[in-house]
Amino acid sequence: MADAEHIQLAHGGGGQLTEELIRDVILPSLGGPQVAGRLLDSAVLAGARGALALTTDSYVVQPLEFPGGDIGGLAICGTLNDLAVAGAKPLALSLSLVLAEGMELALLRRLLESAGREAHQAGVAVVTGDTKVVERGSLEGMVVTTAGVGEVMARAELGFDRVREGDRIVLSGPLGEHGIAVLLCRRQLSLSADLASDCAHIGGLAASLVHELGPAVRFMRDPTRGGLASTLVELSAGAGRDVEIAEAAVPVNPTALAAAEMLGLDLLTVANEGKLVAVVSPEAAAEAVAILRRHPIASRAAVIGTVCGTGVPALVEMVTRLGGRRVIQMPYGEELPRIC
Amino acid sequence: MADAEHIQLAHGGGGQLTEELIRDVILPSLGGPQVAGRLLDSAVLAGARGALALTTDSYVVQPLEFPGGDIGGLAICGTLNDLAVAGAKPLALSLSLVLAEGMELALLRRLLESAGREAHQAGVAVVTGDTKVVERGSLEGMVVTTAGVGEVMARAELGFDRVREGDRIVLSGPLGEHGIAVLLCRRQLSLSADLASDCAHIGGLAASLVHELGPAVRFMRDPTRGGLASTLVELSAGAGRDVEIAEAAVPVNPTALAAAEMLGLDLLTVANEGKLVAVVSPEAAAEAVAILRRHPIASRAAVIGTVCGTGVPALVEMVTRLGGRRVIQMPYGEELPRIC
Repeated sequence: MADAEHIQLAHGGGGQLTEELIRDVILPSLGGPQVAGRLLDSAVLAGARGALALTTDSYVVQPLEFPGGDIGGLAICGTLNDLAVAGAKPLALSLSLVLAEGMELALLRRLLESAGREAHQAGVAVVTGDTKVVERGSLEGMVVTTAGVGEVMARAELGFDRVREGDRIVLSGPLGEHGIAVLLCRRQLSLSADLASDCAHIGGLAASLVHELGPAVRFMRDPTRGGLASTLVELSAGAGRDVEIAEAAVPVNPTALAAAEMLGLDLLTVANEGKLVAVVSPEAAAEAVAILRRHPIASRAAVIGTVCGTGVPALVEMVTRLGGRRVIQMPYGEELPRIC
Repeated sequence: MADAEHIQLAHGGGGQLTEELIRDVILPSLGGPQVAGRLLDSAVLAGARGALALTTDSYVVQPLEFPGGDIGGLAICGTLNDLAVAGAKPLALSLSLVLAEGMELALLRRLLESAGREAHQAGVAVVTGDTKVVERGSLEGMVVTTAGVGEVMARAELGFDRVREGDRIVLSGPLGEHGIAVLLCRRQLSLSADLASDCAHIGGLAASLVHELGPAVRFMRDPTRGGLASTLVELSAGAGRDVEIAEAAVPVNPTALAAAEMLGLDLLTVANEGKLVAVVSPEAAAEAVAILRRHPIASRAAVIGTVCGTGVPALVEMVTRLGGRRVIQMPYGEELPRIC
């Protein structure tokens, strides 16, 4: 299969074939104004005045394409989202690929086009990259690693130390759509037709909150691997405060919930890729929800809980629909390898 | 093998085990002042005034440890070196891991300690990271992806467009030690005892040149995958000028040369991981060599060639020891997968 439509080892060799791959496949596929020139080994960015944010993530999701997204768009959104919850506007992205010999170029093109679209929509450039190829059979799927540099917005004052008793916890929409969609797809379960990954760039949500509410926004996070449970436990431990959420207040996607119950999963621990958790002052909570709901991807935003007093150890509790209380723990591991 | 000394799938799940891995293995192994706090998803850097450089590379070298280095140190050096040849001082690094279920933690610790040492020596922090784990058997070895942000030095004026006829090409030392050392190690050839990878941070070399020679330094590059041949062909094509080097002037490691001949490889195309190629003005060439030789890793630096007039297409030629001329081409692919 050393033909023109499949990745060969030499595509990763740093020679002519690597150059051809970059010139004929990667640059055109990423496409558009978000690609700065030649994807040089090192990219020079215009000077920045404020504080900078740097983030990175490796993506290994299987399958590479799933309802609602693919590894290419996911890798860009994920890194943009990490910048967004740090209160930063993206300045530039990097994209590094590890491919397996024999991968279809058509598939690679689709994945890179998806990545390019997400970057383009966010108005940010992929300015540098790398491509490695490993022997057939030594890597299932592919690895996409993105890094991003951003400039922290002037009005952003975020951190565990800014979280106060009485602050409200806002969630931008229903939980678990990414993890459940990927899992159903992987198991070829028919329910998947009704459910798509929520994979999306949440930079607009975060920027609106920071721009309009300033220091009333205390903390933001995107509840990816480990789900909302991990995010809330981190928040609680980081701020040293108990956290309480109300089950009835958490937006639900009925298909995701039904699938999770069928699969024996707790939606609170399932990965999301287009959701925002924000801690805001009590006075700003209603406005935060209204701001988020102006964005189509956050039309079901809601206040789901409250930050309580200091606790040792600090606990996260959920008041159930039946009025009971349940301690939310960080999941031990994750039953869903390669979910992102 | 779901024991405490082997990577489990849950280590990549984003839950407790991920936190334990970061807290008990990754942070202590990286160690020292170069690790800023908790390796948060997104890192805020102090404000920078000048232009910024961003770079990334994924490393898949096999074996993970080889004479003279390992994938951990290599990943840090490689990214620092990409910043160095862009004329940038590193501000911060990211480090993202893809591990296979079943990997020995002792090995992971060694690799991360090596990475930490290199970062520490360079005085730069790994400020953010990510860890994914894939199922046993779905990845041979591991993937380490580093990204770096740097601030371009005030005196750096580098680019293909700054290269002039008559400029000299300086090389910091003998070729191919990394590629040959890894290959010998992989094939378990006994020669490997005599040869080690040249893996090293060349930031000191680059900074000395830029600091002392300023705009007399036109262009810099580290000849990694594809070797010196790829670097010179890129230089020639980028500047639109012929390039001529003298075989007799190129520093040689006799063991590497003998091994390359035995293996049927051309040292000009073999990867280096601690070498610098610099194009400097003719007046500055001797001083450039003297500056480089002050550094132990560049004690054999030499002028190896000259930039000639414009050519269409621009060619790279080598004057052989016997007085013949040989056109140097970019290698088609690379016979050495997973060399870096």
